[in-house]
Amino acid sequence: MKNADLLIKCEHIYTMEGEGVGYLSGHGVAVAGGKIAAVLPWAELEQAYTAPRTINAENKVLLPGFIDGHMHTGHGVLRGVAQDIANWMMDGVAPFERQRSPEAKTAGSKLAIAEAVMNGTTTIGDDGSGMAGALAFIDEIGARGNVSIRIREAAVRSYRPGELYEFDEALGQKALDECLALYDRWHGHDDGRIQIRFGPQGADFLSLPLLQRVRELARERKTKIHMHLSQGSRETKQMTMRYGKKAIPMLAELGYLDEDFVGIHLTDATAEEVAIAAGAGASMILCSASIGVIDGEVPPAKEYLDAGGRVGLGSDQAPGNNCHNMIHEMYTTALFNKIRFQDPEIMPAWQVLRLATIENAKALGIDAATGSIKAGKDADLILIDLHHASLSPLLTVPMRNFVPNLVYSARGDEVDTVMVKGRLLMEGRKPLTFDLDKILAEVQGFADEIGALAAPEFEKIDGKNARYMKERKL
Amino acid sequence: MKNADLLIKCEHIYTMEGEGVGYLSGHGVAVAGGKIAAVLPWAELEQAYTAPRTINAENKVLLPGFIDGHMHTGHGVLRGVAQDIANWMMDGVAPFERQRSPEAKTAGSKLAIAEAVMNGTTTIGDDGSGMAGALAFIDEIGARGNVSIRIREAAVRSYRPGELYEFDEALGQKALDECLALYDRWHGHDDGRIQIRFGPQGADFLSLPLLQRVRELARERKTKIHMHLSQGSRETKQMTMRYGKKAIPMLAELGYLDEDFVGIHLTDATAEEVAIAAGAGASMILCSASIGVIDGEVPPAKEYLDAGGRVGLGSDQAPGNNCHNMIHEMYTTALFNKIRFQDPEIMPAWQVLRLATIENAKALGIDAATGSIKAGKDADLILIDLHHASLSPLLTVPMRNFVPNLVYSARGDEVDTVMVKGRLLMEGRKPLTFDLDKILAEVQGFADEIGALAAPEFEKIDGKNARYMKERKL
Repeated sequence: MKNADLLIKCEHIYTMEGEGVGYLSGHGVAVAGGKIAAVLPWAELEQAYTAPRTINAENKVLLPGFIDGHMHTGHGVLRGVAQDIANWMMDGVAPFERQRSPEAKTAGSKLAIAEAVMNGTTTIGDDGSGMAGALAFIDEIGARGNVSIRIREAAVRSYRPGELYEFDEALGQKALDECLALYDRWHGHDDGRIQIRFGPQGADFLSLPLLQRVRELARERKTKIHMHLSQGSRETKQMTMRYGKKAIPMLAELGYLDEDFVGIHLTDATAEEVAIAAGAGASMILCSASIGVIDGEVPPAKEYLDAGGRVGLGSDQAPGNNCHNMIHEMYTTALFNKIRFQDPEIMPAWQVLRLATIENAKALGIDAATGSIKAGKDADLILIDLHHASLSPLLTVPMRNFVPNLVYSARGDEVDTVMVKGRLLMEGRKPLTFDLDKILAEVQGFADEIGALAAPEFEKIDGKNARYMKERKL
Repeated sequence: MKNADLLIKCEHIYTMEGEGVGYLSGHGVAVAGGKIAAVLPWAELEQAYTAPRTINAENKVLLPGFIDGHMHTGHGVLRGVAQDIANWMMDGVAPFERQRSPEAKTAGSKLAIAEAVMNGTTTIGDDGSGMAGALAFIDEIGARGNVSIRIREAAVRSYRPGELYEFDEALGQKALDECLALYDRWHGHDDGRIQIRFGPQGADFLSLPLLQRVRELARERKTKIHMHLSQGSRETKQMTMRYGKKAIPMLAELGYLDEDFVGIHLTDATAEEVAIAAGAGASMILCSASIGVIDGEVPPAKEYLDAGGRVGLGSDQAPGNNCHNMIHEMYTTALFNKIRFQDPEIMPAWQVLRLATIENAKALGIDAATGSIKAGKDADLILIDLHHASLSPLLTVPMRNFVPNLVYSARGDEVDTVMVKGRLLMEGRKPLTFDLDKILAEVQGFADEIGALAAPEFEKIDGKNARYMKERKL
């Protein structure tokens, strides 16, 4: 008998190994030292392993934890202030974001991360500046972090159409220094649970020398670059004015788009550019819900997959999505693409579940540790409770309807148990490593302050939501 | 002091009165005899009314219950068997539906109705044949019913392209008799809580004489016609072959499309046809999620609204949606239309909330009883609990972010309390008038039987899901 820390006896496991969802019936999982020690038929497992605790996952389904490939958790404190509005960044988010203190940002991160975990996310793909608080919280509650630290050199936060951003070398250096310091502090922490990525904000936000320096430093440190790419008309204009070409061809010429590059959004990428990026080995993170809310668009993820590229999903941010829930990202990815191509067979349930798990792990370069249920990987596992109307009834013959119902019907509260590296973060829907009440109270206090301070600029801009308020429509 | 049965002390009420969401702060509602007796500032209300119970809705939001304008609840037992597949009806649903007994159908209805209520739906807009069981359940649990009884004369369930459906007069008569019997049994029951509508399945499924007879009988009985309209290429082909015109122009010539006509889907309607139907006073029910899953299409609801027509939302059915949740219908309506028009300002949150409440009530002709919070209407009310990450933080200055977060972030489990005609159906998320455990167990038993019986035809059709099973992708 081998010793394990925990055995999980399962009726249904979706391992996400192989080409599809890797379904196993009547198996069990042994967890030891934070890792998956074995996945075996239950009768064999209980012969081979002994553990102080066994979870009997009756009427539940075991899955690898969801991976959120791209988030701005610090925006959690601004949930719901920017939707139904054109010019999302300047007219929607900016008046509120300008009033957000570093403390408020960290409170927002805690909210967004807690929300994600309670919806089954085990890997937090955070991105931004001022990330020390978010990183400490990810570490403290035991989540997995794939965190990119923002580097930008463009000095101003308001953009005059037709003018190039001015670069401020000192600003770029300061951001790079922060990135390197957080890399040194956190990268590889807890046996690789925390990964630090270099996060140049976009090809338009950094000078060419700094872009190149970031890449060299990332290579030296054997980490990835995580960058907004071809994310809209403003970027396209800046790149064309400055370099006479868009971001993807320009970065391709620099050799930037390789297997250590993760590009976010690609909303503005043509089919030809998609082929360039995918062909060069770069990954794409698709944020379906946020791009739908912000732009009413559907990024070219299908083309990226068709070109042989790796694609993962991300929830982006709470003002302009407005939630951190990978079930929601799977749903919107499936449906928005069906609508874009007027084809109900596009992006089937099993495929979007892969994009939220194993394919996302591959896209981010963390598939050796997580993304599927396989002996030797870390025990990043979730249990979904079938005792919900949304997942009922459960069919196994002639087809298994669980994955379609997870994607098209489940909402998030079906997630019962969340474990990262063998540590329980939530069980029976009760958070075990964080205090939701405290997080909600704290973020409310900051939001009240931000709302009051943002009011003058909000009124002055007089965007759609300001007008709806005046008309008493909202 | 006047006597009431219940007082509700509210921080936030969205009455849905007026042009927008009709927000009130610090008000209360008195409920007496199943009706809303008063909506007043709390200080005035507690001076004027006394009641044996007061609900202190602290950190909650009061809304009128959601109205689901179109459902096939009997399909609840088939959740998740038909998605990601072209030819949804014949290749997806039919192999399973053929094996569904009347008892299984009623078990499915109970599941779908319980699910809807737990997501805040107070009006069940059911549609179909064999509705006795569903009606008894709606009545028993205390929900509001707007139930249409299906009438069809087309004899066959499988359709040969290029051939007209054969009409079977006896089949039509039998369905009409059932409709009339259920009308006599239920219409106006419990002071109008149950409404029976006449439900010709579609203009292609009934002969012209029967279509006309149904309309005369509905007029005599002062009820509405609830009918699938311009719902796809099959209908269009049948209508063109038989009458040389599509359903909307043909029905318009008959004078069918008046204020007592509710048309479902309109997926295949041109802008001109939309203008005809809306201009004639007919209502449209939009089933965004189901049409997205089944067809990958976005029906012309915006055009219908622009033409001055009334529009409501519906969840359709569990195989091909796959859920009954009006929050989901609001979300998909907002997002699918933003994407269709590539415009983030299309279908803002406040507007889709109206389509799920007061506008739906108007579309169905039940706005005298429900759809908004107004003295004199029935007390169909829900409380949403703000103590969830998805609705946090709550801003009131400079904009109220609750409605955007309800539409874009909430999932359904935030619904805490559901009341219809003053009777509590759920409180603190505990169902009070139905037994969810029993419903789930019953529907599972039927689904197991259906799955086994459906297997040979499912394999023979060899659709996408059958192939995914063989390839172990699902």
